[in-house]
Parts: sequence; structure tokens; C-alpha cells
Amino acid sequence: MIRTVYWENDAVVMIDQRALPGEERYLTCRDYRDVIAAIKDLAVRGAPAIGVAAALGIALGMRASTDDTVDGFRQGFQRICHEFAQSRPTARNLFWAIERMKGRCAAGLAAGLSPEKIREALIREAQQITREDIAINRRLGRAGCDLIRSGDSILTHCNAGALATAGYGTALGVIRAARAAKKKVHVYVDETRPVLQGARLTAWELMREGIPATLITDSMAGTLMAQGKIDLVLTGADRIAANGDTANKIGTYALAVLAKVHKIPFYVAGPLSTIDRSIRSGADIPIETRGPAEVFQVQGLRIAPEGVAVFNPAFDVTPHRYISAIITEAGVIRRPYQKAIAALPGGRNKGDAPLF
Amino acid sequence: MIRTVYWENDAVVMIDQRALPGEERYLTCRDYRDVIAAIKDLAVRGAPAIGVAAALGIALGMRASTDDTVDGFRQGFQRICHEFAQSRPTARNLFWAIERMKGRCAAGLAAGLSPEKIREALIREAQQITREDIAINRRLGRAGCDLIRSGDSILTHCNAGALATAGYGTALGVIRAARAAKKKVHVYVDETRPVLQGARLTAWELMREGIPATLITDSMAGTLMAQGKIDLVLTGADRIAANGDTANKIGTYALAVLAKVHKIPFYVAGPLSTIDRSIRSGADIPIETRGPAEVFQVQGLRIAPEGVAVFNPAFDVTPHRYISAIITEAGVIRRPYQKAIAALPGGRNKGDAPLF
Repeated sequence: MIRTVYWENDAVVMIDQRALPGEERYLTCRDYRDVIAAIKDLAVRGAPAIGVAAALGIALGMRASTDDTVDGFRQGFQRICHEFAQSRPTARNLFWAIERMKGRCAAGLAAGLSPEKIREALIREAQQITREDIAINRRLGRAGCDLIRSGDSILTHCNAGALATAGYGTALGVIRAARAAKKKVHVYVDETRPVLQGARLTAWELMREGIPATLITDSMAGTLMAQGKIDLVLTGADRIAANGDTANKIGTYALAVLAKVHKIPFYVAGPLSTIDRSIRSGADIPIETRGPAEVFQVQGLRIAPEGVAVFNPAFDVTPHRYISAIITEAGVIRRPYQKAIAALPGGRNKGDAPLF
Repeated sequence: MIRTVYWENDAVVMIDQRALPGEERYLTCRDYRDVIAAIKDLAVRGAPAIGVAAALGIALGMRASTDDTVDGFRQGFQRICHEFAQSRPTARNLFWAIERMKGRCAAGLAAGLSPEKIREALIREAQQITREDIAINRRLGRAGCDLIRSGDSILTHCNAGALATAGYGTALGVIRAARAAKKKVHVYVDETRPVLQGARLTAWELMREGIPATLITDSMAGTLMAQGKIDLVLTGADRIAANGDTANKIGTYALAVLAKVHKIPFYVAGPLSTIDRSIRSGADIPIETRGPAEVFQVQGLRIAPEGVAVFNPAFDVTPHRYISAIITEAGVIRRPYQKAIAALPGGRNKGDAPLF
């Protein structure tokens, strides 16, 4: 079992995903700023994993806070939360995790707990979020398992596996659950340029578990669909709007359109913490544009002429009409998504309202 | 002006496209087997350039032939032609060029010319094919120019530029012609994994000419279409069947489907020598599958786990219904392609019938 990010000996530990699959290296962050840097630099990536890292990072940051006046403590907490909120813009889970940590802090302050007690509560809350994430993924996997028939060939994009979460994975969690249910599956893995999460991470995860996988370049997916080689497409999600529009890794939109044209089901797997009911449609989801080096280089190796102009949006939005179903830990939902999403349990999804 | 492949001092000289854009290195082939190796290893690539290289390579091979009996000469010629025909399967221009060289050889034999005279005639014919290719591209560029409006943003895939031909280019030839006609254009360049002809070659060519270009990963093209950033798609072709179905670099099919969904014109540029009237539809075009290293490595750098399974089709087929127009040196043709292609001048396109 891969442990992506976790609390250990008063530090946040994570597998450095930039080094995979060549090297299995762990980062130990003893300063919350190292966790922020790890999120920005993609040492940890994947919407649920970013959320977990932020929760652990906030707990880590507050552990080192020294101003024990109520105002000072609160201001320090808000500043750290703000810094995490600035680390990456698209993944809903980041903001969800920050809100949940804010809720815990606010409850502690309201109860008149000492800063020391609140610090401990924040660490427990972040560890609880970490454990819950794995449990949620297992439920999500079981919920999605019925969508997969034995013998299916599944196309996936980017990495929505154990490495994108605290463990087990969302899209790959569904595939793991299908395997556990003795279904035979084969996975076509989009390499997922520019950062190659498919080639580096998804292929590695699937091979470790002995799940048959074939690596392709992103441009091959449509051709394989035309050749009848793909039975369904299954991806993760970075943010799902109230109407079902879904932001996910760049290239997901094209796959969804191509799946529709080829009459292939296109499924999105995401926990409730990825759903953002405060956002009406995908048009309102902030899409991160990342630096040009990811495109003009591959793993530090330059592949394009010096000075070339680059456009590097990290995500795109798939309109809900292209999505056959969304798999959550509360079950599989289908159109009309507006209604289905509104009916989902939402106790832990409070929108962006500031808690204090 | 880039000279991709040419005859010089009794050798076939070519720019080594594997080294671009980092290094402008030339290969001098004094043995026809080096030309075959260069074609196989993608030192020279692009359907028209492969045809030119094969013509020059056949002339080079026969220059070294020593059996001057009619039967021996003919057998040596056939063997060399056969070896070139085995070098790569998809590009029509390779077989077109071999047929044309066979025609020249057969004419020389029929006229009772000495082997020495036929050798000279073959060298002249190959040089003539080289010069003609550039002239054809210029005519093709002018023919396609009207399809481009000033201000257009053009998406291209792979490299159908000077480097894919003896010079000037097909798809990029149209863009060059548009620029010469004072039209403002901007080109989005798909990097074109696995071999990165877009990032390495097309970006380099466009930057050398000062044509505004933006590099993207292949997965971004559909997203840009949805954002209204693409006015038209323009690619080259490796083989065009009698019904207009077109084999081109892997990923072209997906772009054509996405263009159709987004109501964006999708144009193919190819000289008459790319059209194969002997093949009824794209289903009969042989599609090359290349080795896995192109996918699990990028320029020699491993990006995926050891032992990962890979699928690496080098081309795909775009059905004619997705193609808005085909640009040839004899003009722009549109649906119904069967009729339009049959009406094209075909004097130099004799199908696969052996000449002797």
C-alpha cells in the first residue's frame, strides 16, 4: 500500500512524486513552508492529496506558532491558511481541507481551549482527514465497481491513484475495487504531458499491483477509441461544479468529447470533497496556468528551441453533458447532475464562506 | 531556406532531424544503406522527404553497382528498390519515388543505354525529383493560401514543413505562402509525442522565419478549440486513399474529430505524390507500429517504469468526412473526394504496378 502523505514524528512526510518512477524518495517537511513548496512544485499532487497535505501542513505550521494570545493565535492561523490557499488554485479539495481545519480551530477557540490544546486538535484533525481520505476512496471504489465489466479495457488520464490521494485512489481505486471483485481489466494509460503523471505514476502504480496496463501517448487515445480498443474512460477530478461540470488534468475535455463521439462511457471519480456547490458551472472554476518549462522541457531535458512561446494550462473543464456518471463515496450519480449533486450528503461541504 | 536532403559530391546529404533543434548537424551518406538507416531511424522523416531521400538513395546505390550485365544491373536495381520499399510502410511518397526511379531505369534499359548512362540518368532523375518537390510545395502553398484569412490562428500537428520535404513544406508551405501574401497568422504547434516533431522541428522552422508560434502539448488542442482559440487546423499527410481518407501522424484523427465537433475547418496539405489511387479507403493503408522506446523515453531519457507495456502506432487514419479540404499543387479539392481525386492530374501517379 502506497502512503502518499502522512504525519510522522511531528513532521509531514510524503513520497516525492517528482522522482518517481526512477526513485522512491521521501520528503520530510518540518516547516509548513516546505509543504507549500512541495504542493507548488508537484512533489505532492492530485486534488485529494493536496487537500490532505494542506491539512497536515496547517497543523505543522500551527505547531510552531509562538504567539499564544487569542488574537495572535488566530491571526497566525489565518495567515498560514491563506498561504496554503494561494499554493494552487484549481483543486477543490485544497479549499475544502482548509475550511475543515478552520472549522476545527474555530470550534477550539469558541470552546475557550488553550492554544496548546487547539494545536493538538489540529494535528488530530489533519490525521483524521488523512485516514478518512483512504476510507472514502475505498467506499468510492466499491461504489464505482459496478460500472466495470470483466474484460473491460479502460482508458485513464493523469494519475487519480493512490498517489493522488492519501492512498488507494479515486479512478484507480475503482479499478482496484474491480480487481478485488475478480474482474479482469486492462488499462490504457495516457502518458499525460506535460508532467507525465500517467507514464510516471499511474503506470508505476498499476505495475506494482500487477494490473495489466499499456502506456500510450495522449494523442493515441482517440485512435484507440476508433479502433474499438477502449470500453470506457475513467478519470479523476480536481473540482466539480454544482451542475456537474468537471475540471481535471488538461486533456480530459478532449477525451470526453472523443468518448461521446465514439459512444464510449466517460466516468469521473471524485470524493464529495471535490464537489464545489458554491460554483454554479465550470466557467467559474479557476484554471491554473503553469510555467513554460514543463512544456519546453521533459524532466529537465530541453525539447524545443530556446525562446519558444508556450501555453500551459494545467487543467480544463469538461461540461457535464459529456460525463456519463460521477462516482463518489456516496454512490454513482447521473444526469441531471444539478439535482443529483444537490441531493448528495453535503455536511462536510460548506462552500467558501469564511468560518471566522 | 532549409535544405532537408540533397545530392552533393556523389553523396546524399541530409540535415539530421534527430539532433534538432539543439544541433544543426548534417549527415553525408556515401552508401545507400546509410540512407535506408537514416529513413528507419528518422534522421530524415516526413512523407515527401522520405520519397526524395529514397530516390537519391537508389541513385547512390546504383552508382556503386559493379555488375554491368543487363540482368545483373536490373537485379541489383530491383534489390535496392526493394530494400528502400521495406524501410517504412506508410508514406505513399516513398513508393511513388521508387516507382519513378523504376520508370527511369526501365526506360534506360529499353533504350539500350549502357549501365553507366543509366546510372547518370538515375542521379539526374533523383535530383530532378528533389527540385520538383520544392517547386510542387510552392505551388501547393499558393493553392492553399486562400484558405487562410489574415488574423487566423492555425493549429498544426507534427512537422509538415521544409524538413518534411526537400524544402518549403506542405502545411507549413501554405503558412509560408500566407505570410508572403502579407496575411497575419499565429500558429499553435502540437508538440507531437512521441517523437516531438512539433516541438523540435515545427517550432524551430517557424521561429527561424519569424512566424508567431506557440507550443502546446497534444492534449491541449481540444481545450483551445473549445476556448475559440483555433480558427483552422492544417496538417500534412502520409498517404491519401482514393476516397480521401488520410493517414498522417498519430493524433491527427483526434484533431479532425475535435475540429468537427467545434465546427473548425480541418485541412490536409499533400502533394499528388501522397495520393494513392490504388487504395480504395484508409482501411487499406498500412500503419507502421514503431518500437516502445519512443514512448517510454523522451530523447533517450526514460520517463516510465522499466518493463512497461507500450503501444506505439506512428500514424492514424482520418476518414474523409472529417476533412474540409485537401490542398495539392493542382489545387484545393473538396467533397466528394472520390470524384475530386479521380479528376486530379495523375500522370505521375501510376499505382503500385511493377514496372518491370
